[in-house]
Amino acid sequence: MNPDLMKERQNATFDVEKLTHILDGGPEKTKRRREIELMVLNDPDFKEEDPNFLSRSERYDQAVRKSAQMILKFREYGIADPEEIYCYKKFVDTDRPEPLDLHLGMFLPTLLNQATPEQMDRFFMPAWNLEIIGTYAQTEMGHGTHLRGLETTATYDPATQEFVLNSPTVSSIKWWPGGLGKTSNHAIVLAQLYTQGNCHGLHAFIVPIRDMNTHVPLPGIVVGDIGPKFGFNEVDNGFLKLENVRIPRENMLMKYAKVEPDGTYVKPPSAKLTYGTMVFIRSMIVGESARSLSKACTIAIRYSAVRHQSEIRPGEPEPQILDYQTQQYKLIPLLATAYAFTFVGQYMRETYQRISGDINEGDFSEMPELHALSAGLKAFTTWTSNTGIEVCRMSCGGHGYSRSSGLPDIYVEFTPTCTYEGENTVMMLQTARYLVKSYRQAKAGQQLSGIVSYLNEAEHRRVQPQPVAARPTVVDINDLASLVEVYKLRAAILVELAAKCIQQELQRRKSQEDAWNNSAIDLVRASDAHCHYVVVKLFTDKLGEIGDTAIHSVMSSLALLYALHGITHNSGDFLQAGLLSVPQVLQISIRIKELLSQLRLNAVALVDSFDLHDRNLNSVLGRYDGNVYENMFEWARRSPLNATEVHESYHKYLKPLRSKL
Amino acid sequence: MNPDLMKERQNATFDVEKLTHILDGGPEKTKRRREIELMVLNDPDFKEEDPNFLSRSERYDQAVRKSAQMILKFREYGIADPEEIYCYKKFVDTDRPEPLDLHLGMFLPTLLNQATPEQMDRFFMPAWNLEIIGTYAQTEMGHGTHLRGLETTATYDPATQEFVLNSPTVSSIKWWPGGLGKTSNHAIVLAQLYTQGNCHGLHAFIVPIRDMNTHVPLPGIVVGDIGPKFGFNEVDNGFLKLENVRIPRENMLMKYAKVEPDGTYVKPPSAKLTYGTMVFIRSMIVGESARSLSKACTIAIRYSAVRHQSEIRPGEPEPQILDYQTQQYKLIPLLATAYAFTFVGQYMRETYQRISGDINEGDFSEMPELHALSAGLKAFTTWTSNTGIEVCRMSCGGHGYSRSSGLPDIYVEFTPTCTYEGENTVMMLQTARYLVKSYRQAKAGQQLSGIVSYLNEAEHRRVQPQPVAARPTVVDINDLASLVEVYKLRAAILVELAAKCIQQELQRRKSQEDAWNNSAIDLVRASDAHCHYVVVKLFTDKLGEIGDTAIHSVMSSLALLYALHGITHNSGDFLQAGLLSVPQVLQISIRIKELLSQLRLNAVALVDSFDLHDRNLNSVLGRYDGNVYENMFEWARRSPLNATEVHESYHKYLKPLRSKL
Repeated sequence: MNPDLMKERQNATFDVEKLTHILDGGPEKTKRRREIELMVLNDPDFKEEDPNFLSRSERYDQAVRKSAQMILKFREYGIADPEEIYCYKKFVDTDRPEPLDLHLGMFLPTLLNQATPEQMDRFFMPAWNLEIIGTYAQTEMGHGTHLRGLETTATYDPATQEFVLNSPTVSSIKWWPGGLGKTSNHAIVLAQLYTQGNCHGLHAFIVPIRDMNTHVPLPGIVVGDIGPKFGFNEVDNGFLKLENVRIPRENMLMKYAKVEPDGTYVKPPSAKLTYGTMVFIRSMIVGESARSLSKACTIAIRYSAVRHQSEIRPGEPEPQILDYQTQQYKLIPLLATAYAFTFVGQYMRETYQRISGDINEGDFSEMPELHALSAGLKAFTTWTSNTGIEVCRMSCGGHGYSRSSGLPDIYVEFTPTCTYEGENTVMMLQTARYLVKSYRQAKAGQQLSGIVSYLNEAEHRRVQPQPVAARPTVVDINDLASLVEVYKLRAAILVELAAKCIQQELQRRKSQEDAWNNSAIDLVRASDAHCHYVVVKLFTDKLGEIGDTAIHSVMSSLALLYALHGITHNSGDFLQAGLLSVPQVLQISIRIKELLSQLRLNAVALVDSFDLHDRNLNSVLGRYDGNVYENMFEWARRSPLNATEVHESYHKYLKPLRSKL
Repeated sequence: MNPDLMKERQNATFDVEKLTHILDGGPEKTKRRREIELMVLNDPDFKEEDPNFLSRSERYDQAVRKSAQMILKFREYGIADPEEIYCYKKFVDTDRPEPLDLHLGMFLPTLLNQATPEQMDRFFMPAWNLEIIGTYAQTEMGHGTHLRGLETTATYDPATQEFVLNSPTVSSIKWWPGGLGKTSNHAIVLAQLYTQGNCHGLHAFIVPIRDMNTHVPLPGIVVGDIGPKFGFNEVDNGFLKLENVRIPRENMLMKYAKVEPDGTYVKPPSAKLTYGTMVFIRSMIVGESARSLSKACTIAIRYSAVRHQSEIRPGEPEPQILDYQTQQYKLIPLLATAYAFTFVGQYMRETYQRISGDINEGDFSEMPELHALSAGLKAFTTWTSNTGIEVCRMSCGGHGYSRSSGLPDIYVEFTPTCTYEGENTVMMLQTARYLVKSYRQAKAGQQLSGIVSYLNEAEHRRVQPQPVAARPTVVDINDLASLVEVYKLRAAILVELAAKCIQQELQRRKSQEDAWNNSAIDLVRASDAHCHYVVVKLFTDKLGEIGDTAIHSVMSSLALLYALHGITHNSGDFLQAGLLSVPQVLQISIRIKELLSQLRLNAVALVDSFDLHDRNLNSVLGRYDGNVYENMFEWARRSPLNATEVHESYHKYLKPLRSKL
């Protein structure tokens, strides 16, 4: 092992393994996770070539091979628990999205939720056995976020008892669904339902798209890959153009809404039932934000302990770059963020499970809050991690640009989370809608409960921003409870500011809708502050659950750093609202520096605790053993351009050129 | 043409062509640029396949082919003016770095600057005729920024009058030089010179690395490609391991330092002579920041005018996404930034040329200031553009992730500027060193001139941050001169804060070096504020040169938006220093919204003025004609995965799987 890393590990003030248990949710979970990882690791069927050395077609091919293997293994080993499937799959995929993701994550669950018993009989087992491979085709080339704008039509023909599906325009071509391009032979297609001359809005239809034996596209189906992307090289995101494609009436998913044989439309009993999936997926994305940022931090911090560069004191050996204050300032707040988001992810998962239970018993009361929370936190955490991953990459100097660092891949595989499952700005505005509504309820005298209960106090606060000196300051910058309070007040003030902005627009005779649009900047800002408060609060709450003194101490420092760093980066908000004084903001800067040098000592141990395996990091810079340079050289020599000593272009272009000049 | 774009263009309040002339530096320059672009465009030898559809080896191959063609064309058409070569090359490369970049941009210039007349005879013409293809090998696997840390050795052997070059460790292997992997047959190698038992530090040596006829690596040379990267797919960035490689004494570049045949070392007369190149390249990078951000803004703003999504008012057609305040808030400040950086780039180029003249006459007096300015502005502009490009990409929703958008490519080709030619944090600290030194000189009573002259006033200012109320506010938020002033004061205060921080560390008995490192966060912040001031100032100054009333008006709004947006994003600084009051910060937010809706009307015309050709944008979203969707579909169908209807993996893995389950 690299001696610098060894020294870092020896100097840690806490037990790394115990912290891993906390992150996994207990020692048994850690044990089981490692068992599963080992199953994959020791399985020769999952040996793979570094995708960076493959063409896109080869990457797709390798991914299909591994996915097919994985399905066999699930049967062989009887792995059926969703959590274990998830864990096994993550390790097989090495965190890369793959062609069967939508089959497993959308096609099968949609059948489970929306198919009639008869449809389950026809489709579920064939899909479970991968005879039917499905995807979920919603987004169109010209339509994403706004579902009502989708153009694909499904028109019922009572004469033949069939639906006729069409893509009436170029912009209506289905675009982006994973696995649609080459892998799937079926798609659940979202289309505007027309029957008896009326449009009944979006409904889901099971559409066969490729021949079950030859895999050739069926008549009327124009299907293919949408071409190379920023990441997602393993996935055949696809397009689908439907030209008078006829499917039997029974292929409409009819658990809720129905079309009778004569074309009579029967409405679904409730619209809330499909609500849950979205919330679940967004909650999962919060966890992904934590995981991706943790990976990036692990690589950057280990490398910063291994890399020596420049000099602080002349004549002395080059220091570890982790000793530079600027490097600490880049990485350690991100490390704190990775921990914060990990705990927020845990909270979201637990809350979702708790509320799911209520929903199954018909209690939807907590759903709006969870919906608003998951939307905002999805946006807040993905934006933060997205930027953070790039900071980590650039903190590794030139080598961060090499694919061998693993960092470019983490970024390109992660960044789509900012857009899919609800574009982030739209998500922030959804949360803002809930906040403004709650604020108005509180103002109207209603007593709010749950996470927005702080808006109850709105009436009692002086809401006009005011000079700092005029507001008595009671914040203790070393006390997390006090900082949670100050974040809460900031959120309350910014919600109020946004609500007043809407009010002012209305007074200028703007319509509700224009008033909303003209206040959108303030609304996003309010949502952001709300989410920031929630994260600081949940991190602080988590400390109460940590019994181990040494771990509690280092986690407290991390939480404090997270909170204080957030204040300096938004100091304008806190000063403007008079929540902090100028001397306090200066003190906070000094306190942050102390925390950085204190946490620097445990930085390597803190990333080790994430227990991310070298297989999934796939990074020469972030290797656990720290043997960076030998492995980078070894990796480079395997580059396909080195397959021959002389590239053919020399003979084709460069050598002939001489005679021409 | 897309009707939305047509309408946008009709509604513009100024003459797009006239603004293009201002950006090019005059109508003749615009004319000549377009002539050159047309030469490339109409030349069948430069037809190319979209690199996104090629393997890395094919991309490299295509790039070598185009470069070889280009060299022939230069001779054929007699293109020799550096500015015209640059313009022609940019259009041939479609802004992608290519394998011969270091030959043209570093190998030849280094010969010109550092070769003796005898060496010029031996090397220059063969290199000019591409018999010798060279690169510049400085960075090593373990050593980047800190040149003194480089490990490669060149030991003089007087017995044979040769230098013996060695890579003594893995970390000493030359790493990253462009064109080194496969293209070059020579490299200028930077190595520690040893002669007569003494080390004389870094010197440059011309090392043949491949056989001139067979192109096979020479004995003792281990050379190859360093493998795939985030971008730069056309370039064979390489590694070079030297194992007792002997070169004649005459291959050391000896215009300044020398080694006599007997091994006697002769020192160079001055170290300042190589100073200029670095400054020149950093100044050029400022221009690249402007160009890349302009491209990203062009794509995102045109697409935002074409794309309709969601609804503002129920029942009405989906609005252009450019009508959303949040979209304006993302893109229009970046548009203002692109203009600001364009003008800063012009200023840097002009200043460099002016000062170069002085230097040739032996006057180095302005050099330290230009050096500090180019370092800081390189970092400031590349960081800002780097983030800004990603904001543009994500503002395009899902399609921003497609390679057809052009945006991922702009990002990956641009982001290395944050690291190469001086890592950005290191650059900021170099500028800070100049600022702190200037501050101390001013404090010691010296009268500063040039751009740091504002530090002269330091003595007269109350430097302790203080409550807003205590400082009389005289800022007019609608007056650019007043805003320049407030940015200047912010910079002065932050320089002073950083200098005091160092002072306090010294008082705690820290060494100079530790005091510096422990103040690094504050130093970077001071540099950032200094650069921000310079940019606001140069943008404001530029307005004075614009005679056309309509253009002057829209440029003034852009400059105002740039300045005000910068304030809201750093409002903590301005409030903390008491430079602005809380009501002013609130007024600024309102004013920004007004400017957004005002500038939105001219947004498309403002990006049209950059006059970036579709060939170089290479974006279906950013096309001048706005025919986005048809072209996206057409592009996707050309994706290599669509070459066959059924991918072989179906027959290999998916079909056989059924029988096994």
